[in-house]
Amino acid sequence: MNCIDRLIDLALDEDLGSAGDITTNATIEAAAAGCARFLAKEPLVVAGLDIARRVFARLDDRCRVNFMVEEGALVAAGQEFGVVEGPYRALLTGERTALNFLQRLSGIATASRQAAELLAGTNCQILDTRKTTPGWRVLEKAAVRTGGAHNHRFGLFDGVLIKDNHIEAVGSIAEAVRRARQATHHLIRVEVEVEDMAQVDEALAAGADVLMLDNMSLEQMREAVARIQGRARTEASGGIRHDRLRAIAETGVDFISMGAITHSARAVDISLNVQPKDG
Amino acid sequence: MNCIDRLIDLALDEDLGSAGDITTNATIEAAAAGCARFLAKEPLVVAGLDIARRVFARLDDRCRVNFMVEEGALVAAGQEFGVVEGPYRALLTGERTALNFLQRLSGIATASRQAAELLAGTNCQILDTRKTTPGWRVLEKAAVRTGGAHNHRFGLFDGVLIKDNHIEAVGSIAEAVRRARQATHHLIRVEVEVEDMAQVDEALAAGADVLMLDNMSLEQMREAVARIQGRARTEASGGIRHDRLRAIAETGVDFISMGAITHSARAVDISLNVQPKDG
Amino acid sequence: MNCIDRLIDLALDEDLGSAGDITTNATIEAAAAGCARFLAKEPLVVAGLDIARRVFARLDDRCRVNFMVEEGALVAAGQEFGVVEGPYRALLTGERTALNFLQRLSGIATASRQAAELLAGTNCQILDTRKTTPGWRVLEKAAVRTGGAHNHRFGLFDGVLIKDNHIEAVGSIAEAVRRARQATHHLIRVEVEVEDMAQVDEALAAGADVLMLDNMSLEQMREAVARIQGRARTEASGGIRHDRLRAIAETGVDFISMGAITHSARAVDISLNVQPKDG
Amino acid sequence: MNCIDRLIDLALDEDLGSAGDITTNATIEAAAAGCARFLAKEPLVVAGLDIARRVFARLDDRCRVNFMVEEGALVAAGQEFGVVEGPYRALLTGERTALNFLQRLSGIATASRQAAELLAGTNCQILDTRKTTPGWRVLEKAAVRTGGAHNHRFGLFDGVLIKDNHIEAVGSIAEAVRRARQATHHLIRVEVEVEDMAQVDEALAAGADVLMLDNMSLEQMREAVARIQGRARTEASGGIRHDRLRAIAETGVDFISMGAITHSARAVDISLNVQPKDG
Amino acid sequence: MNCIDRLIDLALDEDLGSAGDITTNATIEAAAAGCARFLAKEPLVVAGLDIARRVFARLDDRCRVNFMVEEGALVAAGQEFGVVEGPYRALLTGERTALNFLQRLSGIATASRQAAELLAGTNCQILDTRKTTPGWRVLEKAAVRTGGAHNHRFGLFDGVLIKDNHIEAVGSIAEAVRRARQATHHLIRVEVEVEDMAQVDEALAAGADVLMLDNMSLEQMREAVARIQGRARTEASGGIRHDRLRAIAETGVDFISMGAITHSARAVDISLNVQPKDG
Amino acid sequence: MNCIDRLIDLALDEDLGSAGDITTNATIEAAAAGCARFLAKEPLVVAGLDIARRVFARLDDRCRVNFMVEEGALVAAGQEFGVVEGPYRALLTGERTALNFLQRLSGIATASRQAAELLAGTNCQILDTRKTTPGWRVLEKAAVRTGGAHNHRFGLFDGVLIKDNHIEAVGSIAEAVRRARQATHHLIRVEVEVEDMAQVDEALAAGADVLMLDNMSLEQMREAVARIQGRARTEASGGIRHDRLRAIAETGVDFISMGAITHSARAVDISLNVQPKDG
Repeated sequence: MNCIDRLIDLALDEDLGSAGDITTNATIEAAAAGCARFLAKEPLVVAGLDIARRVFARLDDRCRVNFMVEEGALVAAGQEFGVVEGPYRALLTGERTALNFLQRLSGIATASRQAAELLAGTNCQILDTRKTTPGWRVLEKAAVRTGGAHNHRFGLFDGVLIKDNHIEAVGSIAEAVRRARQATHHLIRVEVEVEDMAQVDEALAAGADVLMLDNMSLEQMREAVARIQGRARTEASGGIRHDRLRAIAETGVDFISMGAITHSARAVDISLNVQPKDG
Repeated sequence: MNCIDRLIDLALDEDLGSAGDITTNATIEAAAAGCARFLAKEPLVVAGLDIARRVFARLDDRCRVNFMVEEGALVAAGQEFGVVEGPYRALLTGERTALNFLQRLSGIATASRQAAELLAGTNCQILDTRKTTPGWRVLEKAAVRTGGAHNHRFGLFDGVLIKDNHIEAVGSIAEAVRRARQATHHLIRVEVEVEDMAQVDEALAAGADVLMLDNMSLEQMREAVARIQGRARTEASGGIRHDRLRAIAETGVDFISMGAITHSARAVDISLNVQPKDG
Repeated sequence: MNCIDRLIDLALDEDLGSAGDITTNATIEAAAAGCARFLAKEPLVVAGLDIARRVFARLDDRCRVNFMVEEGALVAAGQEFGVVEGPYRALLTGERTALNFLQRLSGIATASRQAAELLAGTNCQILDTRKTTPGWRVLEKAAVRTGGAHNHRFGLFDGVLIKDNHIEAVGSIAEAVRRARQATHHLIRVEVEVEDMAQVDEALAAGADVLMLDNMSLEQMREAVARIQGRARTEASGGIRHDRLRAIAETGVDFISMGAITHSARAVDISLNVQPKDG
Repeated sequence: MNCIDRLIDLALDEDLGSAGDITTNATIEAAAAGCARFLAKEPLVVAGLDIARRVFARLDDRCRVNFMVEEGALVAAGQEFGVVEGPYRALLTGERTALNFLQRLSGIATASRQAAELLAGTNCQILDTRKTTPGWRVLEKAAVRTGGAHNHRFGLFDGVLIKDNHIEAVGSIAEAVRRARQATHHLIRVEVEVEDMAQVDEALAAGADVLMLDNMSLEQMREAVARIQGRARTEASGGIRHDRLRAIAETGVDFISMGAITHSARAVDISLNVQPKDG
Repeated sequence: MNCIDRLIDLALDEDLGSAGDITTNATIEAAAAGCARFLAKEPLVVAGLDIARRVFARLDDRCRVNFMVEEGALVAAGQEFGVVEGPYRALLTGERTALNFLQRLSGIATASRQAAELLAGTNCQILDTRKTTPGWRVLEKAAVRTGGAHNHRFGLFDGVLIKDNHIEAVGSIAEAVRRARQATHHLIRVEVEVEDMAQVDEALAAGADVLMLDNMSLEQMREAVARIQGRARTEASGGIRHDRLRAIAETGVDFISMGAITHSARAVDISLNVQPKDG
Repeated sequence: MNCIDRLIDLALDEDLGSAGDITTNATIEAAAAGCARFLAKEPLVVAGLDIARRVFARLDDRCRVNFMVEEGALVAAGQEFGVVEGPYRALLTGERTALNFLQRLSGIATASRQAAELLAGTNCQILDTRKTTPGWRVLEKAAVRTGGAHNHRFGLFDGVLIKDNHIEAVGSIAEAVRRARQATHHLIRVEVEVEDMAQVDEALAAGADVLMLDNMSLEQMREAVARIQGRARTEASGGIRHDRLRAIAETGVDFISMGAITHSARAVDISLNVQPKDG
């Protein structure tokens, strides 16, 4: 919650400065009321409704925001899905910031859903990564879930992920796992990045809970899954594109992590039609 | 500067929580030193060098970051363009955040340059918009300039842009311009959004400094430019795509504003190779 | 808005510390209600009503503040112009801080109005400067407008003002103007400080939008205005006192900027009569 | 310390916004060095040297500020009293903010000294009040001491001052003093505002440590001092002007408190001559 | 007030991170309502009711907290003393933080009362010290008063306490007192730490308001009190334990200061029984 | 890191206010240097060295703090273990705050070590709980590790702990576990609180990773461990006292969690001997 408030503050501060919306303040009466309607210009999975609500609330606590759909709903092109009523000035001033949030987050939810649907009927799940927009981690992770994909660890603090640098520093996967377990609490699992079958064996012997199969071919993934036999869970990782998702899932891995559902999601097209109350 | 520090704080807080990088802290000795090299994986215009430097400085003030290129340099695929030396822990902990900034900002600079180059030899300039990532306004505006495009107003506070809602509220373009001039200081110009020739005439008569030609056809733009005869500057706006840039510029408009160079810029591919100091 | 909240916080923190109003808390029951009336002790232009309201709201959100006059009203000596009702403790605790704001801001509005009235019937406007009380910029600029004078740029970020140091650094007015236009967006105007007719000519040739006539005699101002012939706007500046305002305006300059209306405005005399609710 | 940092932040934020000093950044090379000299344009008691130093340090930590005089020194008209060396940009950007602080604080120190000198040879001291500029309390209180006058309590939290509202609420001076002593710690003294001889007697009987003689005539003050016979200290208060100071002191009161030395102090005239390093 | 808000923020931030209460959010419907009852598990003096209220308010402003007892009430083992109604999620999420505050503060109030009762019938008061939990000063000082003991100075800023280091630095108690009076305002008293009768005499001669009898035997305290004859107040200090309180009070000292009532107070046992609204 | 800085700020702000250490500033020259030695007054496990260092660094960056022991060292009664050199004022001003941190944190480390030693030779580990001092979570968790005990989850966000309220809300342990796994990422384990053997069986069947044996008798714990046969890890919880630790460990549970090592740890006795540099 707190991170989100800090981001909203930052967003409004950078757009308003201390002089505020000088055009709107010069031309719109302080007492004028208005009404604004959110309209999808393309099919999308909507995400970020609460933050759009909070942007208007921060500008003026008389704003009333109502959405006709739930977070995560599929919205059709041309569908109106929300209404803001309140001081006309606040509607015009907040429009761009609210849309900037909503378009990007709905873009991520939409991309997440597309990825998740490609895996329908398999036991494999799409995970996000830490390749999120700095400052937006909480929001983007929520949008991923909204779209039906799943989260990887939230940050560096709530999951152990041992990579090649860590292994090299302590000399072996076994030692790295041992140290990580020693240093972290008993509700944190340990994942190890492995690049070949020797490392798969080493990580299993070390008692890793999850193996990240890094940049492996489909063939290698199948071999790794067979070798592991359920003793650890498996995550495919590294330059994953949508067109390979299904094939990867069919190797039997439990998870596929994709930076693309956050860092390359396209902002979807949403507009806000603002009108004076009598309009 | 201040906004940037707030965003770096937010980015590190969300990734580190209060427990920090539990994997690195468990496996890497506090005293170990390391070295990390930034490597371009595709051709790009580099932007965000200073923020990458500050991310590492915030994590540990013993980090020393040196770039072999200037902000805005063209970097070839495969080219190493920077080195960070410092505590090995800080390098591993900061890697992802530094890259998340650098990849997105360099993506914007690269997209800005591509757009600017399409206008080479014309008198027309590419402008950005307020369709930036909330929280990143200063950084993204700087990356646009780094790429050779130009900035529109920074926010709602440092330029007047009168749109249809404002005009409708006061009854006429003339009255809207009059009120805006009255309310703002003498170093702020007034731009008016116009949709047809009648509005062009009205805005000129009202003494607007700049006319935003909103969603006009090439034909309309040419007509507007001819009608205006240099009495105001002109900005083409509304759903501009790269493939129309040259043709629009050739209508004689002074500026073309494009949300796409910020909101739809693709993050470019950059990696950071971290090694222990003896490695 | 944000700057104002930060200043109110600072003002209450410095007066309350963490122990609060130890006298009032010791002697007034927490449940007691009170009523307080703002009274002008001299004729004044009232400014800062909203900040007085917010001081009491921050102390206790049960306070209700009603003003019988609008911001900018002329208030006569002896006139009651506002009432605060709420917890008696909050009224006593907030009295001094609310008055400290109101007296200074009304002083600025009163001084601004006096200056503006001296120019009645001319086409010349009084401008403020950046010689404001650090931390109070937004409030003092608003008080200037309240009094009927006008604002210069808000800060260093929303207007270009090229002074002798800048000119000297780049070698000529022409080059300074060129660089400033290149670096700033198209809704920002460029003003140049000039000291003699040679510089007037140079600035005009460079296309400056506004010329600041720095420390010129009335004779020089007249000559400059004649020379410029409306090709740029003109601002008289430098040690301006009230007794010269009319004569300067009659030289034909568009603006006169005066640090004195902010930095030397006298706090006007206002009292707050606090009474228990039955009193 | 903390309050001061918050105020410096506020001052720089309001002047720089997020775009910064657009004129200086456009015209002065980032690498250029400069030198700036503080010059008194009238005789003054200098105050605020440390805050001027900190303004430049916050802008750029390469700035080096040296003053040739101590805080509180008498500076003659035309005397240079300080030098700042550092990046030329920082000098130009910080000039106005540093001067805005220095001119006001030196004005308060100068006014305080003038008042203090009027009491030379008496046992009476000038005190300031809580009529300070909101946000500036620490700075203005320090400037008062710098000028040779003394401080009253810092805020509502570090001294008890019982006024008519408090007395009325509890029914008697005796009860108000009793409650205040009970609620506050043993290193806090209790002052009571009294308006006539009956209240003087009552306050003495209640054991007040200090009596504030509110708006009394010289005659009344003399009578009060005689009656008190050193059993409490006495503070004259209420609309005190410079021309009455000496006469009031001669009534034998221990302190005279004057809002005017803070709220009505005139900003003194100081300039900063900024030059490029070779200049 | 402000310090308390900062501490509540810190407490909730450290417990919630940015992901929040992942267990409760996964298992409890957002719309579910609940009811929670505070129950004393041992006899105690209750303190911290307001902060418990604010913890729930910060989590969700729909929470309604009602206490059946006043701050400072004696609560019996097994007695329910408060009810929180609101969103079931907020009740479960806030339980631990609210209890962590309430148990510690009630522990301090309970210990303070025990100490205060040992002095019943004497003229001696128990004082707290600056040995409080960093970050909790305001809260713990309030809990001390709630329990019936008294506060020493709040911090380093609202009372002078001259110790051996200060005396040694200036050469004598007389000089230290003189400087302290000169530097501080007239509502601040001066206390001096003394270790033997020579210092008692010296401090009296210097006009100290309060003498801190540091680590003296009962015999020495009696001698000091006799010597002082009411010319200053006296505070016994240094390793005071409950079993010596009565004897110390009977030496005639005015105050006994005890770090133990804050730094060694035991958290008392309180539970919060949370139930769904139909439960 | 960030939480710690916020707490240090809060601690210094509450002790210094805006007027600072008025006694020290009045009596000690600003230029005087000093030296201070940390001395253990009883045997202890030292913890909090870094925060003590940071307190002095925040007060004055010229302070140099050197400890002759490592965090976690056993220090004997009478042993000097650290030296601070720097401005004499800063040493006197920071003494109490530094000690308040160090004494409490070393107390927790000492208590943690005592508990951990009682389990020497068993496979059972001591865990802390969320019963920490609000605002101090990071520091107290670190002190627990310093003393040789282990951490439970850091907060509500980095581990799932399903309690009776959660189970009741969803109808069964199986459903609660299913929902928690669905909502959280794959590196988070799920712990379930169980009260009897039926619940043990249910939790095992649901696939819980850890079972919290809540308030069970030794007999019940033994039965639970036998039943679980290593299929989940076990944590004994609920009113654990030191005298039962060994017996509980011998039931075969993996962990014992104890609120007492944080909420009831006694502050250990440490002093700081401050001397002028020549002293």
